[in-house]
Amino acid sequence: MAELIQPRVLKGFRDFLPASEIERALLVEKLTATFRSSGFVPIDTPALEYSEILLRKSDGETEKQVFRFEDNGGRDVALRFDLTVPFARFVAEHREELYFPFKRYHIAKVWRGEKPQAGRYREFVQCDFDIVGSDSAAVDFEILSLMKTALSAIGVSGVTIRLSHRGIFNRFLASRDLSAKSEDILRTVDKLSKVGEEEVLTQLSVLAGSDGARDILTYIKGAGDGPEFFDETLALLERMAGGPDEDTARLRDIHAFMLETGIEGSFVLDPSITRGLDYYTGVVYETFLNDLPSIGSVCSGGRYDNLAGLYMKDRIPGVGSSIGLDRLLAGLEQLGKKSAAASFTDAAVFCQKAEDMGLYQKIAAALRSRGVACEVFPDAKKMPQQYGWAEKKTIAWGVFADRTMKDGTITLKNLVTRETIDGLTIEEAARKINA
Amino acid sequence: MAELIQPRVLKGFRDFLPASEIERALLVEKLTATFRSSGFVPIDTPALEYSEILLRKSDGETEKQVFRFEDNGGRDVALRFDLTVPFARFVAEHREELYFPFKRYHIAKVWRGEKPQAGRYREFVQCDFDIVGSDSAAVDFEILSLMKTALSAIGVSGVTIRLSHRGIFNRFLASRDLSAKSEDILRTVDKLSKVGEEEVLTQLSVLAGSDGARDILTYIKGAGDGPEFFDETLALLERMAGGPDEDTARLRDIHAFMLETGIEGSFVLDPSITRGLDYYTGVVYETFLNDLPSIGSVCSGGRYDNLAGLYMKDRIPGVGSSIGLDRLLAGLEQLGKKSAAASFTDAAVFCQKAEDMGLYQKIAAALRSRGVACEVFPDAKKMPQQYGWAEKKTIAWGVFADRTMKDGTITLKNLVTRETIDGLTIEEAARKINA
Repeated sequence: MAELIQPRVLKGFRDFLPASEIERALLVEKLTATFRSSGFVPIDTPALEYSEILLRKSDGETEKQVFRFEDNGGRDVALRFDLTVPFARFVAEHREELYFPFKRYHIAKVWRGEKPQAGRYREFVQCDFDIVGSDSAAVDFEILSLMKTALSAIGVSGVTIRLSHRGIFNRFLASRDLSAKSEDILRTVDKLSKVGEEEVLTQLSVLAGSDGARDILTYIKGAGDGPEFFDETLALLERMAGGPDEDTARLRDIHAFMLETGIEGSFVLDPSITRGLDYYTGVVYETFLNDLPSIGSVCSGGRYDNLAGLYMKDRIPGVGSSIGLDRLLAGLEQLGKKSAAASFTDAAVFCQKAEDMGLYQKIAAALRSRGVACEVFPDAKKMPQQYGWAEKKTIAWGVFADRTMKDGTITLKNLVTRETIDGLTIEEAARKINA
Repeated sequence: MAELIQPRVLKGFRDFLPASEIERALLVEKLTATFRSSGFVPIDTPALEYSEILLRKSDGETEKQVFRFEDNGGRDVALRFDLTVPFARFVAEHREELYFPFKRYHIAKVWRGEKPQAGRYREFVQCDFDIVGSDSAAVDFEILSLMKTALSAIGVSGVTIRLSHRGIFNRFLASRDLSAKSEDILRTVDKLSKVGEEEVLTQLSVLAGSDGARDILTYIKGAGDGPEFFDETLALLERMAGGPDEDTARLRDIHAFMLETGIEGSFVLDPSITRGLDYYTGVVYETFLNDLPSIGSVCSGGRYDNLAGLYMKDRIPGVGSSIGLDRLLAGLEQLGKKSAAASFTDAAVFCQKAEDMGLYQKIAAALRSRGVACEVFPDAKKMPQQYGWAEKKTIAWGVFADRTMKDGTITLKNLVTRETIDGLTIEEAARKINA
């Protein structure tokens, strides 16, 4: 006999057992339904692409993390590390076949060779939704609104979506002659929640002098932390950036749509949201669970003015957001909002006599055709074993039958209360189970 | 400006544009619903695994096709080329956490560096469903029955599932002292439909002598080609294999279940089905579309007596089948059974005045909350452009509104008949659209 191989997965990778995979599948289904309900369509792109396509725009950090290799044909290829770069390539390649504004969602795996640690995996699912080909405030609003609707659809209603606008911040920096230092300032400001105000002020002083540092902090803190400060904070930013412009008008429009649709209570104008060094150029945002803000943003995004610039001359503006599915699943678990389902099965037909198997199969088929998810225990094992199996699959109903039962009736057993009902027709049993 | 990169995918890979991805998604959803209805649960495994795990059992052909490389940590890794090997590893690794009989489905991408040709891709979706941990005829039947139900659920009702049993064939070969040549004989018999009877007979004669060759052909042809010959063919095989045994009893049990559930008309006992060199040990089967048999089997599988033998000492028997999703999609297209949907959107709210955008968004949200998949055209572009966009997205209804309309009513336009209805409340419009 050949030596056994130790069954194991790679570091940073993982299997999904039924309970976890059901949880993830249900989440994806609810998100998908929400996207479809708002006019978004699905696309798919290959997991593997030319490294040149995926990596041109990346910083060195990404390059180090990517799974990159030479294929059997000598091509330099890599596994996608996000869904944004492939989408940019997709839009450039298929622009003649698409219609604009184009709304797509894409829920798929991506791979990064990150140092594995709690909650960080080398294979994970991203869930992106974008609208490209329109520069309208309406589509900024639609993505923001959809973020709230999608999270609400999966049972997360207490969220705060924090947004700001890169353009206003850039004007503010320019007015103080700090544009050249914008990347360093962004990087420093991003640390505010981690290192605190004083440390950020110290670091900013090095970059912008002490007056400049104080100004930046005043800007970043806004007029107050809550939906009710939206107008006041916007007025403050506008003043500090040198007056009204397209960027401030954009935020006012978006806020007006929120007020008209009655969802303004979930949105905070928070100038500390900058999305670091990302490619965003307009509105940017992050989403926090009110009951669990510590896990960080579960849904982030923003507006970019040129999606596919690496691959085509035409500029295509867009706006999009991405849900961190794994982080969200972890959050739902911590909040006790995980479903406890270990299967989709409503009823189990138990096997008491092997020779009645044909009858069991017939009953199962009849129940299924009446909307009951149903399965048959395939062997005439002892009942405790059959019950144990049904319990592990969280099956609520048991069915007993044999060929001597009159008029083809069956016995139904509630596996939780252990109550049994005899003499039911299939029709009656199905109604009872579906009730 | 940096030089543009030509947007393109790797040879043998492809993008799925919305219409194709919607088609595929709907197919997967219907299959998923069928699996769940029969007690199957989903699992997931990593796309990337240790090469040692994936390739130990493979023949040289597979090894040449696999995407294999050294990762940044110096590990020898490969992309999975099927879902069976990872499932075997999964069962061995998690056997203590699973319950048996264990029924799982797994619909996911696999990768093979095959020579790209019509209908052959280097990245494709497999759809596997298996029951492991039971040697009962009931689970053989369940997989066979599910194959019919699943295909019927996606609109393919005219199918013929051809099955046979490896064990009977092996007994037949042993009775003629041909066991040692079984692989060569299997390989030759597999060519029957391609090269014809005469050529196969010639090739078999070299292996088994002319009497042996004729015997093999008699066995392979059975008593007749149709569901009505099941018993007669089974009697013939039994005779030629040296009498009744577990294998023939197994086929009789399965056929009895088919008769009792009334699905026997789709199943043909066809001894020419051998599944070549696959790892099957019991019942084996292939599925053909009655209206398009030429595209080959769209769903194949069988029973194996030791799923995870490479990774653990315990023997776990099982039975499973795999739907070739890409081949099936191609078949549905040829049969004119493709859906023509380019989106899921029921209604488009058109934009006549930019200043009414808040109202449009409010109407869209109200329609969505009443089950209407709805979107807003985001810019006040000319109407022909908005109509053109709605047509490309196959949207059936248009909504017009402005703030002067009394009592917040709207106008609904059937975009196919061009009929318009004025003065509808949101409630009335939703009813009309959902009708």
